[in-house]
Amino acid sequence: MLGRPDITSFALGQPAPELFPVEAFIKASREVLASNPGALSYNLPLKSLKAHIVQLMAMRGVVCNESQIVVTTGAQQAMAIVSSLLLNRGQQLLVEEIIYEGIQLAVRPNEPEILTVPTDLETGMDTEEVEWLLRKGSNPAFIYAIGDGHNPLGVTLSYEKREHLVRLAQRYGVPILEDDVYGLLHYEGKPVSPMRAMDERMVFYAGSFSKILAPGLRIGWLVAPEETVPLLSSLKYGNDIDTSTFSQQVTCAYLASGGFPEHVKLLCEEYRIRRDAMATSIAEHFPDCVRVVVPSNGMFMWLELPTHLDALELLRFAIEAERVGFMPGVAFAVTGAERASHSIRLSFPNCPAPQIREGIARLGRIVKASCS
Amino acid sequence: MLGRPDITSFALGQPAPELFPVEAFIKASREVLASNPGALSYNLPLKSLKAHIVQLMAMRGVVCNESQIVVTTGAQQAMAIVSSLLLNRGQQLLVEEIIYEGIQLAVRPNEPEILTVPTDLETGMDTEEVEWLLRKGSNPAFIYAIGDGHNPLGVTLSYEKREHLVRLAQRYGVPILEDDVYGLLHYEGKPVSPMRAMDERMVFYAGSFSKILAPGLRIGWLVAPEETVPLLSSLKYGNDIDTSTFSQQVTCAYLASGGFPEHVKLLCEEYRIRRDAMATSIAEHFPDCVRVVVPSNGMFMWLELPTHLDALELLRFAIEAERVGFMPGVAFAVTGAERASHSIRLSFPNCPAPQIREGIARLGRIVKASCS
Repeated sequence: MLGRPDITSFALGQPAPELFPVEAFIKASREVLASNPGALSYNLPLKSLKAHIVQLMAMRGVVCNESQIVVTTGAQQAMAIVSSLLLNRGQQLLVEEIIYEGIQLAVRPNEPEILTVPTDLETGMDTEEVEWLLRKGSNPAFIYAIGDGHNPLGVTLSYEKREHLVRLAQRYGVPILEDDVYGLLHYEGKPVSPMRAMDERMVFYAGSFSKILAPGLRIGWLVAPEETVPLLSSLKYGNDIDTSTFSQQVTCAYLASGGFPEHVKLLCEEYRIRRDAMATSIAEHFPDCVRVVVPSNGMFMWLELPTHLDALELLRFAIEAERVGFMPGVAFAVTGAERASHSIRLSFPNCPAPQIREGIARLGRIVKASCS
Repeated sequence: MLGRPDITSFALGQPAPELFPVEAFIKASREVLASNPGALSYNLPLKSLKAHIVQLMAMRGVVCNESQIVVTTGAQQAMAIVSSLLLNRGQQLLVEEIIYEGIQLAVRPNEPEILTVPTDLETGMDTEEVEWLLRKGSNPAFIYAIGDGHNPLGVTLSYEKREHLVRLAQRYGVPILEDDVYGLLHYEGKPVSPMRAMDERMVFYAGSFSKILAPGLRIGWLVAPEETVPLLSSLKYGNDIDTSTFSQQVTCAYLASGGFPEHVKLLCEEYRIRRDAMATSIAEHFPDCVRVVVPSNGMFMWLELPTHLDALELLRFAIEAERVGFMPGVAFAVTGAERASHSIRLSFPNCPAPQIREGIARLGRIVKASCS
């Protein structure tokens, strides 16, 4: 679908390209290259970037210091090296039944035995079930959790469940890998702090500039338990030596210019408009039996269609007859294939509101026709 | 040492920053960003970049096509994903006794049993020893080899040994991971084609723009057996999703401008001057008992000092008394610690010739004093 411009695609977790601060990046690239050709060399992770990340973490309610930070090539690498560190081959891993497919790819080289728990669409991961598994002797290498803007379910993990999960991590000695790449894309209500704010020994926090600045920078980071930083850095080196110094310096120059908080505000305003356009259009054009999770964070809206519908078949119809694309739920199913088979994930940041309204109306026709 | 500008460092495999085509990169960055904000998005690997890589491989005497290429975040990631693909935990791996430390880091998550063979300083890896190991039943997941500009030994693997190694790979069904990041930095004699030119089923070829353009781009590639490309691409996705689209497009724009062959020629001319300055100064200032490998490719000169010298101790003296840095041989020793303990690796591209001459004279004083 990537290569077909005639398709309205709600499939990918792409930020809006028209909102990238392109002029600022052109300026930053020129400044960086003209003042320091060393930006094109290998280098140690930039201390100045770490200082910016410390500030950004404070915006998320997390107090940390530079010696707890590992700069990575996107959050995906952060997850890959945490998996390398914590997960021995064949060991257990705990995730939700329906979850970001990238974590499955990140851990695959270690061939874990994957344990799953269900997710409540209003409060997030079922932490009672986590407790039950741990109490009966399961011993996962870590628990993977997305606190805000769950991919693909959109849900926010409640404050109570975050506390519960952290208590379990402490009691059973099982670390948490907290994926917070959507945390700053917040649309309503009071933001909840990440679990890293509650515990800095058991929580490995993964962040990224991909969703709040640009994926093409390939810059993410870990806020890790400090004693693990040397080994994580060595695993990172073994993976790709260093994260592009050029990207790091361009990002630093951009952040130093002071426009970042305003930029995040702009993203939140515009993405909220797009999210609302999508939710309103769904209410208008989809049958009532469709369950919709309207997220307060992130990029994704999760729809559960009537159980007799096959989302993969729907996708074929939608592309052929109405030129609309989305991700079928099964793409994210670890063990939750039954629920996922009649569900779809829609991404809303990547299209302007009028295109969203038109695309959803077209998709609604297909869903209605399939329901009747 | 990285942070001390008062030190003349021959330690790191850094290209000369003053030779980076900075103006061309400034122009390319502006053009790419101004014409297509999508350069900052996630994307599939660029077909146009693969087409350039096919041409570049032809410069190396290798015929390949785009469907055999995996774009990676530097050659290091290429090695990491080949290791993930081929190496099961605890399996055997065959390398030289003294070898690039990055391969050891790349394979470490798989905890291989490492088999080693010695290296002849004039013809490279001892392929008779490889044959002996294979014949007596060793079964490594792959053989790692650097054909040109061996890191750290500087040696070129002879044509006969390349043929021998490829025959062994075919006969025993053991793939070769060929690290060719220094191949285009060629200073004298007729270039020898990589082993990939002899076999496209058993040879995984790793290339990179780091040494011939700029490490800060973080762009490398694999030329792999075609049937392994889908799985390698999926392993790459699991590692870091994609290689910076921005970097890929800037590199493409630079390559399309046509200046690349001239740039490589310039690098070879200037690095040859630096190499010669280093070799001449060593002849002048070091005692006769020091054995020097003057490489016809790459970035490194290997020196074997009298056996009673401890290179680590020498490094401490050299930094304190003469402010000169280098890599002690032990940094590269898998099993060759005895040979490595009195050896050092000097990198010559990173300093202009006058600085090389001065630094080598200072280092020579220390070595002479230690010898007498």
